[in-house]
Amino acid sequence: MANTTVERLKVNYKTLEEFKKFKEYGVQELSMLEDLQANIVENDSVSPFYGIYYGDKLVARMSLYQRDSKYDLYFNPPQSYLELWKLEVLPNYQLKGYGKILVDFAKEFGLPIKTNSRIKSQGFWEKMGFEPLTYDVERDLGENPMVWLPEGVSEQKSNS
Amino acid sequence: MANTTVERLKVNYKTLEEFKKFKEYGVQELSMLEDLQANIVENDSVSPFYGIYYGDKLVARMSLYQRDSKYDLYFNPPQSYLELWKLEVLPNYQLKGYGKILVDFAKEFGLPIKTNSRIKSQGFWEKMGFEPLTYDVERDLGENPMVWLPEGVSEQKSNS
Repeated sequence: MANTTVERLKVNYKTLEEFKKFKEYGVQELSMLEDLQANIVENDSVSPFYGIYYGDKLVARMSLYQRDSKYDLYFNPPQSYLELWKLEVLPNYQLKGYGKILVDFAKEFGLPIKTNSRIKSQGFWEKMGFEPLTYDVERDLGENPMVWLPEGVSEQKSNS
Repeated sequence: MANTTVERLKVNYKTLEEFKKFKEYGVQELSMLEDLQANIVENDSVSPFYGIYYGDKLVARMSLYQRDSKYDLYFNPPQSYLELWKLEVLPNYQLKGYGKILVDFAKEFGLPIKTNSRIKSQGFWEKMGFEPLTYDVERDLGENPMVWLPEGVSEQKSNS
């Protein structure tokens, strides 16, 4: 694992083909493909995805998006934060630490991180140092938000 | 099915016990239980859940929450709308139309409805008259939003 690096994935046909192997392939990827086909985005333009290659095969990925502080309903003081989703490691490459490498990469931006955890994967996020927020129906609806708090940042208390 | 009625579910120990049979039992339900135990909410207070009973057994449910128009990023003209989540029918009661009865109930409010569809259930939502929105990473992140548009309402075009 010493040489495992995380790369920002570019929007191109090869990457979009590799995405099809991931369980959470969905409208986000389809939309990228359509934009590429329609020349709305250029080949090799940046994507919100980061991934790990094993040889030339993409074996793990996640999406990261930086939210402006004015949309922050999660952290105190309110600030820019990262939303993390579609963290996924291909079945034959699981339990090798690739998930942790991606999460550690996200933490290095130094911003708080918010993700929407499945109930089943809450244990993984806790091992990664994430904690569940106090559920607030108005903010969270069907989400199970979990957050990673850098030093000096705490949970935002809702007013509702 | 002629007599099937949809009821707004109240927060009480019986309902919260029945919720445990549903696959998507999660922090929302746990939070309701804790609030009840701590007397933060009263027994039989209103919940965002609606359900269908077969005899005295809860066999289908969904959550509905009305969003204020100032948060509307989905509809044109911007307006109050319903967010629908945790639509679920217990395994032995599926394919009997209970899902449709719940969705029809939600439509009767006359407001646009937004849900976050799983890729696998997109076909169900299309049968219910929902349509996928144009994916917008900044708004949608990991969601696959699908909406139901009442007469005179259309999709909000993003500026990004």
